[in-house]
Amino acid sequence: MTIRVTVWGENVHEHENEIVAGIYPKGMHTTIADALNRDSGVSASTVVMQDTDHGITPEKLADTDVLIWWGHKAHGEVSDAVVERVANAVWSGMGVIFLHSAHFSKPFKRLMGTPCNLSWREAGERERLWLTSRNHPIAAGLPDHFELENEEMYGEPFGVPEPLETVFVSWFAGGEVFRSGLTYKRGAGNVFYFRPGHETYPTYHDANVQRVILNAVKWAYNPAPRIADPSAAPNVPVESALEPIVERGPKLHKDGEEGYR
Amino acid sequence: MTIRVTVWGENVHEHENEIVAGIYPKGMHTTIADALNRDSGVSASTVVMQDTDHGITPEKLADTDVLIWWGHKAHGEVSDAVVERVANAVWSGMGVIFLHSAHFSKPFKRLMGTPCNLSWREAGERERLWLTSRNHPIAAGLPDHFELENEEMYGEPFGVPEPLETVFVSWFAGGEVFRSGLTYKRGAGNVFYFRPGHETYPTYHDANVQRVILNAVKWAYNPAPRIADPSAAPNVPVESALEPIVERGPKLHKDGEEGYR
Amino acid sequence: MTIRVTVWGENVHEHENEIVAGIYPKGMHTTIADALNRDSGVSASTVVMQDTDHGITPEKLADTDVLIWWGHKAHGEVSDAVVERVANAVWSGMGVIFLHSAHFSKPFKRLMGTPCNLSWREAGERERLWLTSRNHPIAAGLPDHFELENEEMYGEPFGVPEPLETVFVSWFAGGEVFRSGLTYKRGAGNVFYFRPGHETYPTYHDANVQRVILNAVKWAYNPAPRIADPSAAPNVPVESALEPIVERGPKLHKDGEEGYR
Amino acid sequence: MTIRVTVWGENVHEHENEIVAGIYPKGMHTTIADALNRDSGVSASTVVMQDTDHGITPEKLADTDVLIWWGHKAHGEVSDAVVERVANAVWSGMGVIFLHSAHFSKPFKRLMGTPCNLSWREAGERERLWLTSRNHPIAAGLPDHFELENEEMYGEPFGVPEPLETVFVSWFAGGEVFRSGLTYKRGAGNVFYFRPGHETYPTYHDANVQRVILNAVKWAYNPAPRIADPSAAPNVPVESALEPIVERGPKLHKDGEEGYR
Repeated sequence: MTIRVTVWGENVHEHENEIVAGIYPKGMHTTIADALNRDSGVSASTVVMQDTDHGITPEKLADTDVLIWWGHKAHGEVSDAVVERVANAVWSGMGVIFLHSAHFSKPFKRLMGTPCNLSWREAGERERLWLTSRNHPIAAGLPDHFELENEEMYGEPFGVPEPLETVFVSWFAGGEVFRSGLTYKRGAGNVFYFRPGHETYPTYHDANVQRVILNAVKWAYNPAPRIADPSAAPNVPVESALEPIVERGPKLHKDGEEGYR
Repeated sequence: MTIRVTVWGENVHEHENEIVAGIYPKGMHTTIADALNRDSGVSASTVVMQDTDHGITPEKLADTDVLIWWGHKAHGEVSDAVVERVANAVWSGMGVIFLHSAHFSKPFKRLMGTPCNLSWREAGERERLWLTSRNHPIAAGLPDHFELENEEMYGEPFGVPEPLETVFVSWFAGGEVFRSGLTYKRGAGNVFYFRPGHETYPTYHDANVQRVILNAVKWAYNPAPRIADPSAAPNVPVESALEPIVERGPKLHKDGEEGYR
Repeated sequence: MTIRVTVWGENVHEHENEIVAGIYPKGMHTTIADALNRDSGVSASTVVMQDTDHGITPEKLADTDVLIWWGHKAHGEVSDAVVERVANAVWSGMGVIFLHSAHFSKPFKRLMGTPCNLSWREAGERERLWLTSRNHPIAAGLPDHFELENEEMYGEPFGVPEPLETVFVSWFAGGEVFRSGLTYKRGAGNVFYFRPGHETYPTYHDANVQRVILNAVKWAYNPAPRIADPSAAPNVPVESALEPIVERGPKLHKDGEEGYR
Repeated sequence: MTIRVTVWGENVHEHENEIVAGIYPKGMHTTIADALNRDSGVSASTVVMQDTDHGITPEKLADTDVLIWWGHKAHGEVSDAVVERVANAVWSGMGVIFLHSAHFSKPFKRLMGTPCNLSWREAGERERLWLTSRNHPIAAGLPDHFELENEEMYGEPFGVPEPLETVFVSWFAGGEVFRSGLTYKRGAGNVFYFRPGHETYPTYHDANVQRVILNAVKWAYNPAPRIADPSAAPNVPVESALEPIVERGPKLHKDGEEGYR
């Protein structure tokens, strides 16, 4: 059984910025997908923002077990219809991993219901990630801490809901901390946010970072069949109640009528 | 110090349905506000959907410590701009309580990031609410369980994120259960969902229900000053880093540049 | 890769009570283990309270990936040393599932830090379990609700900490509700509490109950190596600090001294 | 209405160590209590380990709304009976705040159900606490971050259960991070852990630290009457079931019999 991963790349900096192009000549999404494909249990493909429907067609989502999202400069260019499509797929059971600047992507904000804001500094400073949940599957095979010599700083307060679990917390040389690995569930879908990955540094070539993403894919994957209509609000008629009851009192809805939305 | 509450009423059924008009001649919102105003620490006013901006002007929100929302038939008529205004006020620190069919209201879905769906039946059946978090402030003065002889059924699975705390769980005569009292935090704002309150039954005249809503107002209220810009993502320049660091490596942003959204 | 399960049986009622002996002639633990062994990925064995060290030797725990615990009448007879042994194994990464009346077992109370109390009634009434977390792995292959025609009632408030996730909530014919499936993490170990299983009813022969227990075994299993000393509190000497720091100010401990416990 | 606080001091270092005695001539507990007593809504007294029953008599607990606990060197000398007394008071509704090295105190470990371990270094290094939950009442009046120039380092992984909310995360000059402010509920009682306070530094004279402790007292305080028996597991006889049910099937317990523990 193979986990089908789709890596979504914004794919702008790679073409506009020489440094990014130098580190990720085939795009950040390809580097991430290539690393995942070294695991025999994963089959990762890529789509980019410039594809039709940003590459996020209904067919593609139906064939995706776990979606990985990296965006930064062009958050605002992602169409709202695609955002709703992603949200619906997550609610129906697709796993999703948001990387770094995707904290401000439309689908992440849509699923969190919060501003998802933070403070930041681009100084190539040292980041050290500390494990805060021992033996968490997302940390499998990793030491209690690991370093990225050059990273962008993200600082607290991070404007997200309290997670199910805080898996990593980052230390920054300039004096800040950040909750760097956070798990959520939205509808039937598992959600993981992972902080590292500024585009001007070779973060996605780092073995520990690649390991976290691979672990997160396995954690987020849910083999259960997708829920057909994750927003359904079915009426249960009185005559098919599980316990025998008699209808009482005044009613607003006629029999068989749909509920309001 | 008085807690300023605004009760938002959809105010449609009260004018279209004789039964609802009979139970709530001045509107459900007025019944809720009147009950709150019996407490000397609360000052509750009402607005209705038909008011300009649905009554949710920036000035009104600035003067509101806790917003209470009841809607059902006309969820779709609430403007998206007002929904964003409510969300921003919550993120900045306003408390908010969603009642019954407001599970499908736009602001609740906006803040949860999930479908917020459930199953339902309108049969006037018995509901019994059980306390699941002992001595929770929202349950102050209440017994371990209380009953509503006639209510609409809402059944699990309820499509919401795992809450901070589950405060009440409901039993229904027809065989279902429902997590009836759930707490969340979104940005700086406290959020409470409370299930009872179908418009064709006198639920908001019930003393226990009124007590829960009053308790929830006090729980949701946060005396801290509102956060001015709850979505701000400030850049921290290298030269003002809390620890002395030297800028290293390539940069994407020029000095003083705003981040992408 | 096979998950090694140990089913711990109190093994008292089966010998003292004809009804229990009739339903579980080889003991409840054997019924549970036999059901698990039908899955090719699981290898389940049994131990009973009457064994040396209640069957919970250090060697047995070292060979156990997931421990299942059923006890009722003889909670007080379990030695405190064995309770600590179990707690240490969980903290080091062993999964553990507590069934039904094990809510009052010593190891469960030890791991929860709360009274774990509830209300109860032995009337053979109908219990209906509702799923509250869609597509949760512990509910894999199960419908949104299932029934046990005869069960003991457990009622809220259930004196446990707020769980990571509430997976099931039960409805009882006599009017109560109960959070029937709850997940926790304690140290590196996953913990699941599952309510059904009164000894005078054939609950552990029920296919849905067996499915939940099998799913929970797979959920609780953590393939990571056990943590050698889950209570270790290592001193990090100044000279091996990850960032260069200079010792400042007065000290309580001499160099190389152990911390206080 | 005044919140009655009892500050428990281990009171050993203050008599054995000149540095500690110099910073806290009347004991750390007295410094903490004096700071609290500057607030007109709080009445704080102190007890010390050397008092009869360590000062924790049933009468004292009955008169305590919030207990504050600081211990380090003599954790092992605290009697288990007193630990159970404290746990019972918390379960019945008393608030409790554990400070710094009390992470290894018996009552904290008892309430958490985990090892509560961490890494540590005594180098007088800089600690900076960051707020992670905006406008949390425990952070009222505090900036987004504040510093303690000299503190002992505590590092992750911190062996505690996932909290209800993470309120503070600390940055240390030597490269570690730590979840420094954590909220829990145990039974009916609110629990807060707050990291700073090594005895050889003047931490409890710091205005921000004093403010956190005062805020935490107000947060932990629950005005509801204490639960008389927080471990009670009442039987609900069939004839007094809330819904009419008929007893069915075999029974283990005779009518009116107590449950097993």
